[in-house]
Parts: sequence; C-alpha cells; structure tokens
Amino acid sequence: MDCIFCAIVEGSIPGDMVYEDDDVVAFKDINPKAPVHVLIVPRRHVRSVNELTEEDAGLIGHICLVARRLAHELGVAQSGYRIVSNNGPDGGQEVDHLHVHLLGGRQMRALG
Amino acid sequence: MDCIFCAIVEGSIPGDMVYEDDDVVAFKDINPKAPVHVLIVPRRHVRSVNELTEEDAGLIGHICLVARRLAHELGVAQSGYRIVSNNGPDGGQEVDHLHVHLLGGRQMRALG
Repeated sequence: MDCIFCAIVEGSIPGDMVYEDDDVVAFKDINPKAPVHVLIVPRRHVRSVNELTEEDAGLIGHICLVARRLAHELGVAQSGYRIVSNNGPDGGQEVDHLHVHLLGGRQMRALG
Repeated sequence: MDCIFCAIVEGSIPGDMVYEDDDVVAFKDINPKAPVHVLIVPRRHVRSVNELTEEDAGLIGHICLVARRLAHELGVAQSGYRIVSNNGPDGGQEVDHLHVHLLGGRQMRALG
C-alpha cells in the first residue's frame, strides 16, 4: 500500500489534524483552496464512492456529520460552506482514498 | 411553505425525474452546469447540513449511495464525477432545502 492518506491515518506521515475518532480523521489540506479547507477521510482504505456498499451508509453519514461539526468549530457554519467529493478522473480526484473536502471562509464560485 | 423542492417532491411542480424512492427524489438540474447534472433531494424538508442530526446519518448515507447509483446509470461512474453540497451564503446554496449535486460528463475544474 502506497497511499498517502493511509500514511496520515497511521501517523507515519504527519497531518495537520483537526479531528479524529474511531472511524475518520480530518486534517487541513496541504494546498488550501479557501481559508477553511479540511479533508475528512475514513480510516479504512476505500478508493472512491464507486466502491461504497449499502453497509457503508452509516460511515458516509458520519463523514457528513463530522463536516457539519467542523463547519461549526471552524466558524463557517453561519457564513456558509461547501462539501465536495471528487471521484475518478473527471471528478478531479487526486488521491485514491475516499475523502470529502470541507471548504469555507470565502464565497464559493462555480460548481466545478 | 414556499419551497420549490417541496413542490417538486409533491408533484405540484414538474421535475425531470431520474430516481425516486420513499426517502429521496432525484431530478435533472434545470440550469445544468455539466452534461450530467442531477440534484438528489430528501423528501423531508431539511434546510441544510446545519440542521442534520445524528439520527439523519442513514439518510445522508442513502443520498450518497443514490448518487453512486445514478453515476452508474448515467454513464459517468468510470469517467468520474463530483458530488457537492452547498450550505449557506458562502456555499452558494440557492434553494433552502438540502440537496446534493451530482456532476459529470466533463472534466471538473476548481473546487469552488
């Protein structure tokens, strides 16, 4: 396994962590596209949304609720924020480990 | 209630539906930003991610799994796609009824 997000989950590569629990970790994007730009990542290696099954519904919901919580903690819940999941080439997915972007702190522009 | 998405859910305003079940509906965006641009909307009126609770984890997960299913059905699962939830002013949320965008069929650009 040569997955940078697995390495961050395991701690062998440091991440600027903002949240951790038994199922997910969240850390600041190393190349932020907005004043608030956090990645929420399941500890388990899942390649993309394509590989999720019905049994993962709770995990996905949890990731979204962590995004909601972090929007509050990082001060953008009222000003607004965008939650994005890129999947595959056209999606612009850059790391093949499922991750959700939380973006805020400025007006979002086009959807993609 | 003067919510256009509630009206589409109820059928009093027509939508170009691509999926329906007991909990969610999905229809083509009336002003598409990509060759595939579908909105997935819970039947229940929830304003945004801010108003979701732990009890909604299954619903959110279900919405994401419907996005995954529609990506397959609409032919963009392998080429790639983006899933987006805009919340509040900075997020660019245009209708105050929670909805998730599924975008595909072309290379996505900036995250927002």
